[in-house]
Amino acid sequence: MVFWKKLFSNSEAVTNPEITNFEGELLKVETEHNPQARILFSTERDIDLYELETLCDRVSWARRPLRKVKKAIQHSFLVVSMWEVKGKRKRLIGFARATSDHAFNATIWDVVIDPDFQNQGMGKAMMKYTIKKLRSADISNITLFADPQVVDFYRRLGFIVDPEGIKGMFWYPD
Amino acid sequence: MVFWKKLFSNSEAVTNPEITNFEGELLKVETEHNPQARILFSTERDIDLYELETLCDRVSWARRPLRKVKKAIQHSFLVVSMWEVKGKRKRLIGFARATSDHAFNATIWDVVIDPDFQNQGMGKAMMKYTIKKLRSADISNITLFADPQVVDFYRRLGFIVDPEGIKGMFWYPD
Repeated sequence: MVFWKKLFSNSEAVTNPEITNFEGELLKVETEHNPQARILFSTERDIDLYELETLCDRVSWARRPLRKVKKAIQHSFLVVSMWEVKGKRKRLIGFARATSDHAFNATIWDVVIDPDFQNQGMGKAMMKYTIKKLRSADISNITLFADPQVVDFYRRLGFIVDPEGIKGMFWYPD
Repeated sequence: MVFWKKLFSNSEAVTNPEITNFEGELLKVETEHNPQARILFSTERDIDLYELETLCDRVSWARRPLRKVKKAIQHSFLVVSMWEVKGKRKRLIGFARATSDHAFNATIWDVVIDPDFQNQGMGKAMMKYTIKKLRSADISNITLFADPQVVDFYRRLGFIVDPEGIKGMFWYPD
């Protein structure tokens, strides 16, 4: 059983002295198996690219040049990471980012949750955090391109497939 | 009959002294009705917002706050405009912009062609120019969300609907 003691009611800086140089918002999670687990969200961009690559490896994504991943993170409007914190140690367990025109539209890319933390509401919590951040930046049109196996996941979060017949389209070179 | 004398073979700065302070790439267009017409593409962001609003009015788009339109243009990765040039006068006849992470993905928004210039290959030319610009920036994943009535237009340009079952999704507030 997962009990969300506090979820997004307001931002809470992490003040625990054990965690230095890490700004984030705290999501307290108590589980029967790990009553000490704490989950943090952050929008800091200074993510260890190798740690991110390890996370992406765990969900079998094709590897991408870290140089380009770094550039993509720099030029994303929003970068969200999710961390499991135990004492002084933190572990990257989720990631998402969004491109945007800073005014009307945002598009969410690269949503990944560590398999150990899937099916526990963590992905949902991370996406709600992401939506909240985009909404607080006055972005009204939040979009994404969903693989078939996650369409229902996003539907439960309020995303709509092809609203008013609008179709997602991709261009590939001939 | 429209004859494309030169289309994207290489970039050609506009050197005609009649057109000052205007950088663009020339697309020579000869039509039976207007042999003097010249069509220019530009990626300059310094677009008169009222002129853009007039263009959008002509296709009956809902008006948007110019303050936000300005911000969106500033924060777009690519802004493409298409102009009809006659002597010293130029008229905005097409517009498109793209958000991007500068590395992997781009999403094209706000594609508009003046009704006087529709069904003459102008929209196709502007989109090919847009794709060429994105490709030259090493963007491999070019995406968009197409209204039902323009899905076939984009299909003819090589865009694919829902490749491998990937669905475009939109989030709206509850």
